Amino acid sequence: MIRVAVIGATGVVGQEFIVSLDNHPWFKVEHIAASQRSAGKRYSEALRDPNSGVIKWHQREDIPEYVKDMILENVDNIKPDSVDLVFTALDSDDAKVIEPIYAKHTPVISTAAAFRYDDDVPILIPGINDEHTELLNVQRKHRGWNGFIAPLPNCTTTGLAITLKPILDRFGLKNVFMTSMQAVSGAGRSPGVAALDIFDNVIPYIPKEEEKVQKEAIKILGRFNNNAIEYANFKVSCTCTRVAVIDGHTEAVFVETREKCEPEDVKSAMLEYSKHVSIKDLPTAPKDYIYVHNDPSRPQPRLDRDMNDGLTTVVGRLRKDNVFEYGIKYVLVSHNEKMGSAKGAVLLAELLKSKDIIS
Amino acid sequence: MIRVAVIGATGVVGQEFIVSLDNHPWFKVEHIAASQRSAGKRYSEALRDPNSGVIKWHQREDIPEYVKDMILENVDNIKPDSVDLVFTALDSDDAKVIEPIYAKHTPVISTAAAFRYDDDVPILIPGINDEHTELLNVQRKHRGWNGFIAPLPNCTTTGLAITLKPILDRFGLKNVFMTSMQAVSGAGRSPGVAALDIFDNVIPYIPKEEEKVQKEAIKILGRFNNNAIEYANFKVSCTCTRVAVIDGHTEAVFVETREKCEPEDVKSAMLEYSKHVSIKDLPTAPKDYIYVHNDPSRPQPRLDRDMNDGLTTVVGRLRKDNVFEYGIKYVLVSHNEKMGSAKGAVLLAELLKSKDIIS
Amino acid sequence: MIRVAVIGATGVVGQEFIVSLDNHPWFKVEHIAASQRSAGKRYSEALRDPNSGVIKWHQREDIPEYVKDMILENVDNIKPDSVDLVFTALDSDDAKVIEPIYAKHTPVISTAAAFRYDDDVPILIPGINDEHTELLNVQRKHRGWNGFIAPLPNCTTTGLAITLKPILDRFGLKNVFMTSMQAVSGAGRSPGVAALDIFDNVIPYIPKEEEKVQKEAIKILGRFNNNAIEYANFKVSCTCTRVAVIDGHTEAVFVETREKCEPEDVKSAMLEYSKHVSIKDLPTAPKDYIYVHNDPSRPQPRLDRDMNDGLTTVVGRLRKDNVFEYGIKYVLVSHNEKMGSAKGAVLLAELLKSKDIIS
Amino acid sequence: MIRVAVIGATGVVGQEFIVSLDNHPWFKVEHIAASQRSAGKRYSEALRDPNSGVIKWHQREDIPEYVKDMILENVDNIKPDSVDLVFTALDSDDAKVIEPIYAKHTPVISTAAAFRYDDDVPILIPGINDEHTELLNVQRKHRGWNGFIAPLPNCTTTGLAITLKPILDRFGLKNVFMTSMQAVSGAGRSPGVAALDIFDNVIPYIPKEEEKVQKEAIKILGRFNNNAIEYANFKVSCTCTRVAVIDGHTEAVFVETREKCEPEDVKSAMLEYSKHVSIKDLPTAPKDYIYVHNDPSRPQPRLDRDMNDGLTTVVGRLRKDNVFEYGIKYVLVSHNEKMGSAKGAVLLAELLKSKDIIS
Repeated sequence: MIRVAVIGATGVVGQEFIVSLDNHPWFKVEHIAASQRSAGKRYSEALRDPNSGVIKWHQREDIPEYVKDMILENVDNIKPDSVDLVFTALDSDDAKVIEPIYAKHTPVISTAAAFRYDDDVPILIPGINDEHTELLNVQRKHRGWNGFIAPLPNCTTTGLAITLKPILDRFGLKNVFMTSMQAVSGAGRSPGVAALDIFDNVIPYIPKEEEKVQKEAIKILGRFNNNAIEYANFKVSCTCTRVAVIDGHTEAVFVETREKCEPEDVKSAMLEYSKHVSIKDLPTAPKDYIYVHNDPSRPQPRLDRDMNDGLTTVVGRLRKDNVFEYGIKYVLVSHNEKMGSAKGAVLLAELLKSKDIIS
Repeated sequence: MIRVAVIGATGVVGQEFIVSLDNHPWFKVEHIAASQRSAGKRYSEALRDPNSGVIKWHQREDIPEYVKDMILENVDNIKPDSVDLVFTALDSDDAKVIEPIYAKHTPVISTAAAFRYDDDVPILIPGINDEHTELLNVQRKHRGWNGFIAPLPNCTTTGLAITLKPILDRFGLKNVFMTSMQAVSGAGRSPGVAALDIFDNVIPYIPKEEEKVQKEAIKILGRFNNNAIEYANFKVSCTCTRVAVIDGHTEAVFVETREKCEPEDVKSAMLEYSKHVSIKDLPTAPKDYIYVHNDPSRPQPRLDRDMNDGLTTVVGRLRKDNVFEYGIKYVLVSHNEKMGSAKGAVLLAELLKSKDIIS
Repeated sequence: MIRVAVIGATGVVGQEFIVSLDNHPWFKVEHIAASQRSAGKRYSEALRDPNSGVIKWHQREDIPEYVKDMILENVDNIKPDSVDLVFTALDSDDAKVIEPIYAKHTPVISTAAAFRYDDDVPILIPGINDEHTELLNVQRKHRGWNGFIAPLPNCTTTGLAITLKPILDRFGLKNVFMTSMQAVSGAGRSPGVAALDIFDNVIPYIPKEEEKVQKEAIKILGRFNNNAIEYANFKVSCTCTRVAVIDGHTEAVFVETREKCEPEDVKSAMLEYSKHVSIKDLPTAPKDYIYVHNDPSRPQPRLDRDMNDGLTTVVGRLRKDNVFEYGIKYVLVSHNEKMGSAKGAVLLAELLKSKDIIS
Repeated sequence: MIRVAVIGATGVVGQEFIVSLDNHPWFKVEHIAASQRSAGKRYSEALRDPNSGVIKWHQREDIPEYVKDMILENVDNIKPDSVDLVFTALDSDDAKVIEPIYAKHTPVISTAAAFRYDDDVPILIPGINDEHTELLNVQRKHRGWNGFIAPLPNCTTTGLAITLKPILDRFGLKNVFMTSMQAVSGAGRSPGVAALDIFDNVIPYIPKEEEKVQKEAIKILGRFNNNAIEYANFKVSCTCTRVAVIDGHTEAVFVETREKCEPEDVKSAMLEYSKHVSIKDLPTAPKDYIYVHNDPSRPQPRLDRDMNDGLTTVVGRLRKDNVFEYGIKYVLVSHNEKMGSAKGAVLLAELLKSKDIIS
């Protein structure tokens, strides 16, 4: 078993890690850490508000038994030789400081943006750009680390990159316009999105989100070449909005391709890709990597986000775009807290282990 | 005073008409009509569910005194010589049959789609394409009617066309991509959108909506030439979605222009247009025809839909598009039940009266 | 296997039946029926809106394979000797006419109110008033039927009666005040609750609901005596409201007992009752019949409604009432579409079969 | 003009004060104060998030011109002789420290709970217990202050006490059971209620709220006697819940009276009280102090909270209670941020000025 630490274990994403790693066949959580305020407490006790008695646990599943009595350690206190792999669920400022401390000795899989845009750091989506994992070796040498930092993309990039990949491979990509309608869980919980702001409303702005998606999509879909990533040769323009949805990002995508493509061809390209996706034999891989609806009222975040445990990217409304000479438009739903976060990170860990990059 | 009839007076849009015409300086409601089931009843009585006692009135304002005791007539029973102007709030199938009955004798201003796409019928937005009103004369002659049918656009087209107009005039338009996040009130109330479907959800499909917007925008922004409308020379591609918002459509727009345009130039083009808009002296014209926010978190439907009584189109997030060589992107909010419906229709009636087209 | 028919199979509750009976060890769906408009169509086809292509399926689970190609029959067309048990998901007016047609020959388990208040009809909650099933024999004789009609209570009564039962048994009941905050799914879907009415709102009135709960609770908790039900000797006063929740009714309950009771005693009475509940060995019985939270912020409908597949009544905030000399107050959550509807009906069918009342 | 300071001017309640005092005929805002972080900044600048540019202003009305360029002072830095009246919008811990600093010299009207339960402090609702203002003199003497602290009740108590008062006066009160369904705005904004917690949900617990309402109602409705408040002789039991509503608390009330009362009598008692309410000639007094609906689907928070600018308590569903020998039940809506907060505080200030208690 790979010995695992979860850093930031009490927050929303940290809780997703705790649930995702319950009974995992390859990974065993041996350490959990949180902010100084919680360190030294039992996990279930740390979740309990001492004044009100309210338990701050936000998953549909119960708190797994294995973690209830584990003692939270301080975030930078875990001994390097006691873990083989570190999952982090930190905000970007903390990640900048804490992740390198671990990466010196141990592989780190991160949900934070802190290192995503460094030249020697790949942004990994298991099943999409597995060959970028080779950049981790470059990073190791370059930084003189025993471990590395392997970040996931922003949760809004995930579904977009996954659905663009089969189109890129088959038809080439030229231009992409995307408007996201993002769930409130993407903003975390404290403070997160205030109910007062989002009820009966759309907030048309998520600071820094659009820039992230625009940069990440072409990095992820680029080529690993000559020990570096060569960005993909297409452009992305986004408008990112927040809507009154709990979980599941919805994205309306308009794509200009380089070659002629009909909706039926795009559908079959996606389904073929899904069928043969590299990661299909990993322990937590979903039955469908991409699912395509014919019902024009789908995908809907409430109905589709939980498909295959939130690991499937669900597509619908595939239709010819009427502006581009060669083009397609569609809508996707991707679970921002599952494939776009902790469960995607666990899937990435499985990929890295299957390639002997972690052990 | 112009003597007015409101056809379909008990529905959501009909109620908006009743409120919008209260104390109007030029128009006096002399007849109200509804379906056979309600005909013969007093207006306030017809709104009352006889079983539960619940009153089906959906406006924030109280039922105006002037209408409470008016008797609802049957929809096709109003004598032609007793009214000078008919406002209709009917669904498209009913409009197809009923509007021509009135138009033979009397001008009809319609919120329905039934006649919008006929060659001799303009789609009118007061302040945007006033010169298209000349097509009403062509229609009269062509159909041998004393009156005419003057439809408003679909409520989703309204804000888009209003914001594109100053861009078209100053920079030219080439391509437009738009994703709408539409309010539930746009679907009416019975049955309307079921709470069960839209809570915690986005519905990415509104039947026929995208086609309407794509056609209407280029017709509205076309030129009246040679007794016909010459469609504008640009293309529009939309994805229309429904979100958990009560009132106010939000639209994320990506625009490719023919000439170079900077966000600041687009802002000043919009504000100039707004300042000099043709309809600014009409009785119910809003103080701002277009308003542009600098706060990047605006416009938001809940905060901005009611600006100037719901007649202002509110814009924000004006920024350079990073895909087009010449391009701009922005977000708009337009009140679908006000400027996009009854209040827009009243404003149109004022325009037609000021041009002596109705009297 | 018991051969089963589901009448009203395409509606929201009907769909719950279809899902609940998938792979059931004792029951096999052999007939499904719906309104004339759908009769003759395959089930999956009948769910598809022919204009928009939208599929009207409202469960989180997919449409079970077994039912997809079954042909919908007309509601009153199923041959008596081809089924052993009929589940109905009809509105009350239809139930009044259709249920007796079947009951002449076959046991009918009903979610409708049509016959609930007849003297020879028990209102059954499996695990609460199993001895009332004896009234079904009285009904048979009295009406000269081979079958019978066995209705569930209103979904708002279910959780209330379940939680009152252990209190009644241990401490006696005198007076009960209850305010419900009910989910929109309780009103069905067409038209159901309009999004326009319930967003950002509470509707403090559900026609006839309070009267139902007030009558049903004392009938259910009464004694079967002398071939009739003797109503329980306490009073219930309710205010029933609708809130912006998809599924799961929340109820705030104030109880005056006949004997002294402390919160801890009520908790243990509930847990004891749950542990020894009569139905605990039936195939779909939940692991917990009643669950009691210590976390004061629970139960919450979104977090607790799905406990044990929606069959558990979840209680919290058990505390001394400060008005009554002997009293207790608490909050409960009960899944109106599961224990309060189709899944409760299936559990009832299992109870009746285990008692050889159906076979 | 009375010179006024608003302490805590940038928060949600502080903003309500800023709006409520715009163009007030008697009060002029001369000082505004906020936390140290904002002190020294112009008001409109302090509302602007320096990173995102988002403006944290939460009212439907624009920021009033008079305040935009006022400089925020430090919370405890305002010179005593420069103001005649201080409004505070602080949390309870800050209020405990800061309010006495001002009260030594100046009358303080407070929305915080810090001093509400002290024997020499009245809890004031203008129009309900005006005679309790005499306790302010006792307080002054007792504490040796020139000013005093005059707190409003908790926003959930306000509507309850207002509607109980006419019942108490006419029929006497014995026992009251109340379940509240409270709006999210009652919890403020940072952090306030997380969207993630309240969407599609009810939270059945608001720490300390029930105790506050239970104590405050009998203090407010008590008698001023012998230089002290004699608590009213009835009992209140509450369950306080949070629902997915932006503004406006809904309360379901069950009342046992001492004398026989019919719904029609209670209605007329409320309307009579409203008609003759003491404060009806004050500048911001609402046209209706209490309004009673006959439509059984009312009051609804979205439709009724803004009646008369949020100062009216709206009642409906008045009906006989079926448990009590003498009893009544009803539902009320009260705007927690208006009558229950800043606008109620301004009305109280008007009352105190009209009685020459402030000048």
